[in-house]
Amino acid sequence: MSGYSIGIDFGTESGRVLVVEVNTGIIKAVSTVPYKHGVMVDVLPTDQRVQIPPDFALQHPQDYLDVLYHGIPAAMKEANIQPQEVKGIGIDFTSSTFICVNENLDPVCSLKEYENNPHAWVKLWKHHGPKEEAQELLDKALSEKSEWLRRYGFTVSTEWFIPKCLETINHAPDVYEAADYMLEAGDWIVAKLTGEVVRSNCPLGFKAFWSEEEGFPQKFFEELNPTLGQMVQTKLQGKIGKVGQRAGVLTEEMANSLGLPQGLPVGVSIIDAHSALLGVGASRSNQLTMVMGTSTCHMTLNEEFIQVPGISGVVKDGILPSFYAYEAGQSAVGDLFGWYVKQAPASYVEEAKKQNLSLFKYLEFLAIQKEPGESGLIALDWHNGNRSVLSDSNLTGTLIGLTLQTKPEDIYRAYLEATAFGSKIIIDNFESWGITIDRVYACGGLPQKNELLMQIYADVLNREIHVSATDHASGIGAAMLGAAAGGMELEEAVQSMKQPFLKTYYPEPKHVVKYETLFELYKEIHDEFGYKRPHIMKRLKQMTIQK
Amino acid sequence: MSGYSIGIDFGTESGRVLVVEVNTGIIKAVSTVPYKHGVMVDVLPTDQRVQIPPDFALQHPQDYLDVLYHGIPAAMKEANIQPQEVKGIGIDFTSSTFICVNENLDPVCSLKEYENNPHAWVKLWKHHGPKEEAQELLDKALSEKSEWLRRYGFTVSTEWFIPKCLETINHAPDVYEAADYMLEAGDWIVAKLTGEVVRSNCPLGFKAFWSEEEGFPQKFFEELNPTLGQMVQTKLQGKIGKVGQRAGVLTEEMANSLGLPQGLPVGVSIIDAHSALLGVGASRSNQLTMVMGTSTCHMTLNEEFIQVPGISGVVKDGILPSFYAYEAGQSAVGDLFGWYVKQAPASYVEEAKKQNLSLFKYLEFLAIQKEPGESGLIALDWHNGNRSVLSDSNLTGTLIGLTLQTKPEDIYRAYLEATAFGSKIIIDNFESWGITIDRVYACGGLPQKNELLMQIYADVLNREIHVSATDHASGIGAAMLGAAAGGMELEEAVQSMKQPFLKTYYPEPKHVVKYETLFELYKEIHDEFGYKRPHIMKRLKQMTIQK
Repeated sequence: MSGYSIGIDFGTESGRVLVVEVNTGIIKAVSTVPYKHGVMVDVLPTDQRVQIPPDFALQHPQDYLDVLYHGIPAAMKEANIQPQEVKGIGIDFTSSTFICVNENLDPVCSLKEYENNPHAWVKLWKHHGPKEEAQELLDKALSEKSEWLRRYGFTVSTEWFIPKCLETINHAPDVYEAADYMLEAGDWIVAKLTGEVVRSNCPLGFKAFWSEEEGFPQKFFEELNPTLGQMVQTKLQGKIGKVGQRAGVLTEEMANSLGLPQGLPVGVSIIDAHSALLGVGASRSNQLTMVMGTSTCHMTLNEEFIQVPGISGVVKDGILPSFYAYEAGQSAVGDLFGWYVKQAPASYVEEAKKQNLSLFKYLEFLAIQKEPGESGLIALDWHNGNRSVLSDSNLTGTLIGLTLQTKPEDIYRAYLEATAFGSKIIIDNFESWGITIDRVYACGGLPQKNELLMQIYADVLNREIHVSATDHASGIGAAMLGAAAGGMELEEAVQSMKQPFLKTYYPEPKHVVKYETLFELYKEIHDEFGYKRPHIMKRLKQMTIQK
Repeated sequence: MSGYSIGIDFGTESGRVLVVEVNTGIIKAVSTVPYKHGVMVDVLPTDQRVQIPPDFALQHPQDYLDVLYHGIPAAMKEANIQPQEVKGIGIDFTSSTFICVNENLDPVCSLKEYENNPHAWVKLWKHHGPKEEAQELLDKALSEKSEWLRRYGFTVSTEWFIPKCLETINHAPDVYEAADYMLEAGDWIVAKLTGEVVRSNCPLGFKAFWSEEEGFPQKFFEELNPTLGQMVQTKLQGKIGKVGQRAGVLTEEMANSLGLPQGLPVGVSIIDAHSALLGVGASRSNQLTMVMGTSTCHMTLNEEFIQVPGISGVVKDGILPSFYAYEAGQSAVGDLFGWYVKQAPASYVEEAKKQNLSLFKYLEFLAIQKEPGESGLIALDWHNGNRSVLSDSNLTGTLIGLTLQTKPEDIYRAYLEATAFGSKIIIDNFESWGITIDRVYACGGLPQKNELLMQIYADVLNREIHVSATDHASGIGAAMLGAAAGGMELEEAVQSMKQPFLKTYYPEPKHVVKYETLFELYKEIHDEFGYKRPHIMKRLKQMTIQK
């Protein structure tokens, strides 16, 4: 097959449309469309008097459509190719990004009656409204030792899809009633393009307690809340498709609007991070892909199903046919570095300016001159809770080893190291349950720009780290799914379109030895606060809300 | 008795001469004389090529004499009184400030032959050269369960007097040989004024393993090092006087130089912090005085001798006749706040400037708006090790409960709270061994200027805190000793010269409850890192020196 595929990567702040040559992986064009409304946390756009509750993080569905309407024509123009040369469209999207739509696929928030109800709007992945609902689901599942809970590392995140459904049932029954479909936003985009609802097995499996073998835990839902039980047959209706399959073809109306051929195949959607695994070409067992941005997502494929505690999920065919896809994660990585850098002292800001360096680069420049362990610091990178392997959002960040001689670059380096130690915990956990990791790939916003960080990862993990050269691993993965929808084998698409590596970081033996000692101490502190005395951080967290 | 007393307070950076009315405590004049050479850590003043080793902190003895020669005449002039109206002179001095002098009382560093040897100069209290010597002393004492070690909370600090003696024996035998007296600098000043060496029982008891009942542990010294054994009869010769007694009278030469009457009584010296207990008038049992500056010294008097572990020392008649004086301490308080404030972000520096506030005041302004526990943070204030009750200089500072929402004012407040928790540990320890604390006094550089800090102490300790109005509690104590040398009963001098209180802080009941919960968690973390897993911080500290 020759020609081009369109991959559309929907992120948190913007969408990116890529036009990619299917035989070579060459990116002919990229068009980025920022979301006009971004992440909405203050007031609703329909009425500035309607305050959005704390913990909510909403989006405007029109922003997603604007990525299609503006991004696709712009990218096609830049690529300078004929519409007929396009063989398919693939979509990746943030996951647990939850939208209620009616039978015409109109978002409930677009209906006059509901436009001032925050629950009618898109609930972004990082919407943390359904805290109680998540706890309720978890408590019942733990008390019954529900089988499905094993696939989710024995945890239920506030961010996931079903807690958001239950939150809508509990707090906005009229919105619930008005919805004909409750959808992942990625599946809604596919439905808008094709006129047909086809849910992706990837977010369903990773974020909605669904599995191919068992479906949804229907009985569990019914017992918890009869409405939740009915929801499966009503609001969660629609076909389920697998990643790599065709969901449908472009409707006439859409084809005309976008300037693309009617009948163009559209692929089943995929979660953005998971799409990056395809983009870097990590399509074998025993390979780990770290998508490193504000947070880090760790993914690996395996032919076998193994129950691994402390991971975020495992889904059959969730990323590539005939593999179980495993996901684990760290909830603050780039966010943690950004938070610390914002606190850099005035003298550092000044000196960085003088040297014409960003604050990140200036701190890296200072931190790189230190030996492992020289600062005497160890940090726990739990500033946004711990996703893997402790699965506890009440855990908090920690710095140990401070002295009156401690400098900002020491703390900065300790945080870089802490995230590397956190990744080692995840990899060690996979390996201890029988999933060996031979190759480590890194992509996302951080690895290309942070050499010290990646060297620390190589030293701490004692493994080569292969850093992808592309800024668009997820979008490339989506384009691969577009090619697969157009008729290419997905594995073939991965092989021909995967992106090259920018650099490989090799472990430095004398650092490896020092980091072994430091990791021993990190592990001891990790286990102390994570397993033995989790009540310390939990009680501290509780006190922050009891005013 | 009517008239005036001169109190001279020798600190780390300067000396202050006070002229105080003995019947009223009214301060007629204060003259501050900064030490021209300050704390010397880089090169010797005699030869810029002679580098001072790391861990050394030296002073120039001429700087102390300049306090006498310039400060006394200036203060007398300002006070506008007749020399005959002065009834006595008292001296307080930093302790473990170590000087070697010959039989003419000339410092060994003033002799041409030795002027380029760093060991011949004054070793300031914070000189940390004799690390190995302190360890050697401690190891032997622990292995033999030496009785004297009990009075020192089962620890030997690098800062103390005997480790400094042993360091000179080991590393500068020629300096040792040239010395006829090894002295506390405070006792040297008294000797210079009176022409006679009279050592104070206060620094001897608190810092030199001496007690009235046992003298020095002569046999122990001999076994450890024969020279150290001989030292007691040779270099430690001289009379021993008690705080409150007269050491001697002004020599004719000194009287002429200073413009004071010949034969003016001079009191036995006292440690500066201990002098402050007198200055605030805490001359009863069950009263605790906190001298709060870069570090905090906690002192209390008791009629009984009780062995309390984890304190810095207990000395019979060490501050006031017929009381045992107990000392405990925290090694980083003002230093800790200063270290953190130096790291304040650029935006805070700017905003403080705009509001015309110091950074301290601006952070206090923000932190005061928070409720106890609202930040979710707990800190361990061990950035300079832990003096009481853990007695371990390898322990380090810790912050627990950090999130991506944590702000600098949260961290600042957590450090203020941590030092209050540290003081509560010390008070609880005294009480658990039978020394009840009913009243708490605070003086020193911090309490007058830091309202939030003092309110937190009142809330955490659940006790009224009485803050002294004077900046010169130590100097007043010294003036009391001058009056006592002149013939007044020391207790009478304390009652008539003690300084008023600026303010009393009362515990806020709803804060007290929250701090009880937070202290429980602090205690758990304190015990975990202090008793159960001290190896974590120790190993981290070790790694900082293994490059």
